Formats: sequence, C-alpha cells, structure tokens
Amino acid sequence: MSACLCLVFLFFSIVAEATYSPGGFHHLSSLRQNKKASKSKQELPFETRYFLQNLDHFSFTPESYTVFHQKYLINSRFWRKGGPIFVYTGNEGDIDWFASNTGFMLDIAPKFQALLVFIEHRFYGESTPFGKKSHKSAETLGYLNSQQALADYAILIRSLKQNLSSEASPVVVFGGSYGGMLAAWFRLKYPHITIGALASSAPILHFDNIVPLTSFYDAISQDFKDASINCFTVIKRSWEELEAVSTMKNGLQELSKKFRTCKGLHSKYSARDWLSGAFVYTAMVNYPTAANFMAPLPGYPVEQMCKIIDGFPRGSSNLDRAFAAASLYYNYSGSEKCFEMEQQTDDHGLNGWQYQACTEMVMPMSCSNQSMLPPYDNDYEAFQEQCMSTYGVKPRPHWITTEFGGKRIETVLKRFGSNIIFSNGMQDPWSRGGVLKNISSSIVALVTKKGAHHADLRAATKDDPEWLKEQRRQEVSIIEKWISEYYRDLREEEQ
Amino acid sequence: MSACLCLVFLFFSIVAEATYSPGGFHHLSSLRQNKKASKSKQELPFETRYFLQNLDHFSFTPESYTVFHQKYLINSRFWRKGGPIFVYTGNEGDIDWFASNTGFMLDIAPKFQALLVFIEHRFYGESTPFGKKSHKSAETLGYLNSQQALADYAILIRSLKQNLSSEASPVVVFGGSYGGMLAAWFRLKYPHITIGALASSAPILHFDNIVPLTSFYDAISQDFKDASINCFTVIKRSWEELEAVSTMKNGLQELSKKFRTCKGLHSKYSARDWLSGAFVYTAMVNYPTAANFMAPLPGYPVEQMCKIIDGFPRGSSNLDRAFAAASLYYNYSGSEKCFEMEQQTDDHGLNGWQYQACTEMVMPMSCSNQSMLPPYDNDYEAFQEQCMSTYGVKPRPHWITTEFGGKRIETVLKRFGSNIIFSNGMQDPWSRGGVLKNISSSIVALVTKKGAHHADLRAATKDDPEWLKEQRRQEVSIIEKWISEYYRDLREEEQ
Repeated sequence: MSACLCLVFLFFSIVAEATYSPGGFHHLSSLRQNKKASKSKQELPFETRYFLQNLDHFSFTPESYTVFHQKYLINSRFWRKGGPIFVYTGNEGDIDWFASNTGFMLDIAPKFQALLVFIEHRFYGESTPFGKKSHKSAETLGYLNSQQALADYAILIRSLKQNLSSEASPVVVFGGSYGGMLAAWFRLKYPHITIGALASSAPILHFDNIVPLTSFYDAISQDFKDASINCFTVIKRSWEELEAVSTMKNGLQELSKKFRTCKGLHSKYSARDWLSGAFVYTAMVNYPTAANFMAPLPGYPVEQMCKIIDGFPRGSSNLDRAFAAASLYYNYSGSEKCFEMEQQTDDHGLNGWQYQACTEMVMPMSCSNQSMLPPYDNDYEAFQEQCMSTYGVKPRPHWITTEFGGKRIETVLKRFGSNIIFSNGMQDPWSRGGVLKNISSSIVALVTKKGAHHADLRAATKDDPEWLKEQRRQEVSIIEKWISEYYRDLREEEQ
Repeated sequence: MSACLCLVFLFFSIVAEATYSPGGFHHLSSLRQNKKASKSKQELPFETRYFLQNLDHFSFTPESYTVFHQKYLINSRFWRKGGPIFVYTGNEGDIDWFASNTGFMLDIAPKFQALLVFIEHRFYGESTPFGKKSHKSAETLGYLNSQQALADYAILIRSLKQNLSSEASPVVVFGGSYGGMLAAWFRLKYPHITIGALASSAPILHFDNIVPLTSFYDAISQDFKDASINCFTVIKRSWEELEAVSTMKNGLQELSKKFRTCKGLHSKYSARDWLSGAFVYTAMVNYPTAANFMAPLPGYPVEQMCKIIDGFPRGSSNLDRAFAAASLYYNYSGSEKCFEMEQQTDDHGLNGWQYQACTEMVMPMSCSNQSMLPPYDNDYEAFQEQCMSTYGVKPRPHWITTEFGGKRIETVLKRFGSNIIFSNGMQDPWSRGGVLKNISSSIVALVTKKGAHHADLRAATKDDPEWLKEQRRQEVSIIEKWISEYYRDLREEEQ
C-alpha cells in the first residue's frame, strides 16, 4: 500500500492573480507533489488501459463523432467474476494521482472481492481529445465539462461489464473532492449504471450562493483559532507587515531574502499567495499525517504550525512567524534550500480546471474582514471579464444547480434517489459546501468533527485516529448493505 | 374546450421506404390533421411567448453560445400565485398541436389553480435554432436531441418561476408519446425542477431490444383479432392480393383506380403503406372517438373497420375489403373524393423525427409472419446505411439506455426515484414499450385493458368510457398527493 501514498492531491482555492481584491480570479484546484517519493508510478498495482471514447455525447454534429483514447486503470487481483466493481470517477488530473491517493479502495477490495477501476477525466492526464492541442482554444476545450465526463464514465463502465461478461455486477462509484461531486452526481443521473456512491469531501453546494460566500475562508480561520487564538492573530496581522515590507524601498528584494526565494520576487502578491496557500493547504490536510506528504510531522499539521508561531519570543515579527509556519508546509522534509514562489508553468493540466471554473464550476467566494486571510469581495463582473479574456468563454453560473440541483437539496432528495454517502471532515474548509446532514435513510452524511480533505479515501495506516477508522468502518458497512440488497433484488428478479 | 380537439397528434410507425423488407427505414412518428377543423389556432386559450435559449448546454464551444427563440404557450387564468405549474414537455411538432390535444391539463387546471405551460421542442414548430436552415445539414441538426430538449425545459422553467416570483411553486410535467418519454426522463434527471411526471403512452422501453421487436405489430394484430378473427384474416390476406394486382400488366394503374388515388400511383409500396398506415393509426386511436378526429364515427374505430370488412358478401376480394376499411380512416367524414397516397412533402417537420430516429431514438422493430401486416425483419445494417446516406449520421443505438436506463427498470427504480405515472391503454400498440407494472409505491403504472395512444391526455367528453374516466380520476388523485406532500415538506422546511 505504501507506494500509493506518495502523491498528494489537493483541491483548493488560492488566488492566482496578483490580488485578492475585487477582480481576483480564483484557482479552484491545485495539486502538490512530494517529489522525493514520486517514483511510485511503476509501483501502482494497476494495469493501464485505454478506451475509445466519443468526443460529444450530447450532440450528433459530424465533429461529435471524433474519438479519443480515455485512460483507465484496472486491478482484478481480488475480483471474483460477478462480484462488485468499484469505480473511481476521476477528477481534474492524471488518474495515477487519484489511484495513488485512494488507497481506501485497495484496502477494501479483498473483503468485497471487488474489481477496481480508476477512470481518467477527459482533458486531463493522457485523456486529451485533441492531443497537445486540447488546451489551446475555446473550440477544443469546449468539450471539457462534468456532464460529458459522466457520460464517458457511463459508456466506459457499460462496455467494460459487457467485455467482462459480468453485466450483473453491481457498480459502486467513489470519488474525492471534484471526483466526489462527480460520484454523487453519477449516482443521481445514472442510477441504472451504479448502485451507490461514496462522495468524499464533495462541495456540491458550493454553487450559486447556496452556502455563504465566506464559508471557505471562515472555516480555515476557525481551524487556526481552534489550535491557538494567538496563532490566528499572528497570521491575520502578518499581511499588513508583508504589505509594509513590500512597499519599502527595495521592498521586494527584502521580502525575497526574508522568504528565501530561489529566483527572486517580482510581485508582492506572489509572496502573499505563497503564504496564504500554505495555510489553506494545511487546513485541508489537517489530520495526523502518516498517510500523506507531510508524514514526517507528528500529529495535526495546523497545531504544528501554531506551535511554531506560538514558540517565537514575544515581540517577534508576525511576518517572520507566519513565514516560519508556512515553511513547515513547503519544507516539511527540511531539505529545501530555497522556495520557488513564482512558478508559472504547470504540467498537471490545471488550466483545465481554471477553464472549468470559468464555464460551469463557478464557485463564488469571498474572504471577510473577520478571516485570518487577506479579505476580498466577490466581484462577478471582473471574474467574467477575466474568463472572457483568458478563455474566450462566458461563465454559466447557474448551470450546475440547474443540471444537478443543490438548492433545497434536503427537500428534493428526501423523496428522490438513494444510496449516496457524503463524507466530510469539518476541519476541511471544503466541508462547508458539502452535504452535512442525512437527507434520507440512504442518502447520508458521515461527518467528523475533525477530519481533512477526503482523508477517508486515503490508505489506512497504523497511526490513523479513531474518528477516521470509524468513518471508514461506517462506509464499508453501508456499501456492504447496498451490495447485499442488490444481490437480493437480483435473485428475486431471476425467480 | 371543443376548440382543442381538432388537431390530432399521432405517434406511430409506418414504413416510409418502398419496402417492409430488410432495409426498410422507419418513420417513427407522424401527425395527422383534421383539415376541416384546423381553424382552431386562434381559439387556443394560450398566450404565445418566446424564450431565449442556448444552442448547446453540454459544451462551451463558441458555437454553443448561439441563442434561439424557443416558443412556449402559457395560460394563467386559473393560477393563483404560489400554486402549481403544469408543464407539457413538448414533443416532435408544433407545440400548438400538443396544446390542442392535451385538453386534460386545461380540464384539471381550475381544480389545482394551476398555471399551464406548453413548451415547444427545439427544432420543431417555430423553435428552430438556425431558422429555415435548421434541417438542412448534419451540422445544424446535430443539436436536435432529447437531452438538449430536457435541459431547455429545465432552464426555461427555472427562469419562468423566477420571473413570476413564484420559485416555490411545485412543477408537474405532462407528456404523451415521445413527450411522455421526455416527461418521465425529466423527472428522473431533474427532480429538483419537477415534483412528478405524468408520462402517457411513453414507450421508454422500446429501445435496445428490451421489448420483443415484434411487439408493436403483434399488438395491432391482436386488436383486430379481438374485434373479429375474420377481419384479421382478411387484412392479413389482402397483401398478397395487392401484390398480385400490382404485378399484373398495368397493375399500378389498376391499383390506382381501385384505391381512388387523386394523382395516380408510382409504386405499389405507396399503396401498401397507405393501407397498413390506416390499420396502425386506427389501433392507436381505438377508443370511442368523440374526442378525436374520427369523432363522426360511433364506438371503437377498430370495431367499425371490422364491421365493414365482415359486412362484405362471402367471396369478396380481401383487398377490396381492406381498402374499404382503410377508407373509413382516411375518409371518416365521407367528403374525400380521392386519396393522396404519395404526398412526400411534409410541413410539420417530420424530418426532425426521422433524424432523431437515426441518431438516438433507435427503436428497432420487426413484423412477424403471424402478424396481420406484411412481415419484415429488422435489418440494422441497412438502417444504419440509410441514416448515413440521408443525414450523414451514424446511429448510437445504445445511447438512450445508457443515458436514461430502461434495462431491468423495475430493479433499478424500485430503490431510486419517485413520483412518475406511466399511463397506457393496452389497445395502443405503443403500450408494449411502456412501463406496465408498478415499480414502487410512487412510480406507478395505470394500465387499461382498452385504451388508445395518450387518450387520457385528451379533453374529457360526455361520451368517454368509464375506464378512461377512472384512469383520469386516478391521475388527478395521485397528482393531488404529490402536490399536498410538496406543500407539507415546504412548510416543514420553513419552520
């Protein structure tokens, strides 16, 4: 299992543009990789396959018939024919990363004698419909969206079952973060293809003002406040010090030195984003870290950060303290000599997610004055302009809630649908956009007071806290129920 | 109400090509209009409106942002604000026709104090995204399909409710035939937009070999056999007489005379299609006809036809008898001097349905030797070639069941979804592709032993048989339950 723990997927929001102020354009996703341990690819216990997929399922124009190779990973070691198929509905990145970080599925496969399948999301990893040109224009990127991805999964799963001559096998879908949103929506839209979904840390309510716009940053602030009020205050105050340093004569040079950059600093905003990114990320992985890239640290990362901040002598600079805390995140191994703050290139296809954020995945946010992070307002007009200038697209901010619902979800799903687990850990800021209450007897919320971004999907380790073990136990037990119910129905049907 | 009865919509299958044999290409829909009574348009109690709709909801290419005017009809006479909204999910034709033939909604609107909305399906009637060019090429027609239509409805309904400041109004969708399929699918895919669906005569299982391919023509044969074995036998034997006449010297002329054509006959297949069309249609409207275009006739049309056939003297030609029976259908008013059998032009946009049949709505059929109609086998290869040559498209025969399900529907929907009525009359040949058994406590089948194609949706008349009245009473009672349950949930939510 250990081979699967080396890559870390994080789905979060940092500010990509130079400013938090109105007009700021939000990255809605990012990935961070532990370079030291990235040789794992060969060690993943999956066979790589490719499926010939249609470009456009929802039109019949000549172009819609274009095909591309969709990558998927498969592990049949534990499977008995006719047994369950566990499918991970891939999100915004190489499918290998998600396979690496979803050890839970491998952990439980033997018990269920399940086939494991991880399907890559179109336009990410190797699954690029137009090869290297896929991300070049509005024409090619136009086919990147969640509904097309769900239809891809439906078609691939159906074909796979047919090829395996195992069409009666129950399919359970799993996903974390955006992948969790896809898993939940897949169950809602394709109940004839999957019998249930485990949607981990899926912020399906983070659209169209369903949850308060400030909730994400409020949650991060709360995490730090819970660890130490002083820690919260230090970080909150560090921004004005950063501002003050940067506006001094040679301020950027000064800041660059203070922040130990490798290649200098061209904008104070890079430093600010780097710093705030550390706190956002850390809140998302805030659980005992044995199963993720911060593994060398004992205990809860936010507490570790706050220990550093609180350990400074009275009167120390808030900015120095904040930097030291952030270094824990960027240099947990202690081996980094300097920091890269202005890396602009990204080989992980994040542009794909930015494009999705500019079209359908419009998740408005703002950061209040009460927050620990630099405050900003949501400026939809500016956001829209930025999308137009960057991608040539106009966002459709109400589309996700029109297509998938979300508003008044308790009332709607109370009498409709079944078999979805929404799991969340309340220390994960994304939890605020998740389903946090049971909706019906089979659409349930498994919420832990602690808990990080899709921690439950990671491989189990001996250091896992009890709340995490319990959450996973409940998940297994619910999935068992779905499966045995399915086989019972199948037997009745055959009689 | 009477003004609404004059146009008749029929959804049926006749053979458009020259032959029933393998390679035959099927019309899957057609419409028939009572010319005598077609002045009703102005009398429809609806206001016509237009909604600015996006061309493509499932991509973000520059072209997807093209907009078009979607027509809809609205009647707010009975509505109290906050009250229910009844939406007809338009099918393949002018929305006026469906409004005319769905008097049921007008009949029940006062009781429910409901707003009535009839939305036109894209690419039909006036709702043509590319104006007159809409049906010209595979590029433009490519955006004609059921998923786009459902998304249109979702967006229009949401916008309408917002404009009416009545966002909490429960929406119930209604549809007959293909419109019934859309209504059922709309409830399954958009439960957050509609609280329930009445899907009348919706053959959602007529795909992907779920029901036997011969079921449609078997049902027609049964209808006639039930009326009179002799009638069935006469019609069954008439085809070889038709064949014999047409292969004689001057056979086509002879046939043309016999069949009283207005403009002669260029192919024996036209005569055969004309003849078989009469039996197919009549089976579909086989109920006391006071509410449809065959109104001048008393009683059940199939029985009327068989009376004519059985009334001939012993030894009469089978073909003459069949022709006389068919004339009842084509000349129920008695005023037709001659018949048009080779009308090729069609101003009702039927090409749209043929295109849909060539892309997603692939409903395979065959006609067995035991059937009353000329037997033929299903030849998928030939069908596919014909679609390619006519529209430049390759059918996706498994797409509907992948997108909407259908296989093993009882097991799938037993534990998923709610609030759908599938109504069918067993004398309607399309009933064989419908849901005929209750699936759960709230996904129910209202089946009558007699009953025609979406007869329940037509306006009530004093001559309606008891089984029809009872079916409508049950529908009203179920819809009442959905609505009161919804308001109860709403009150709970607000507390």
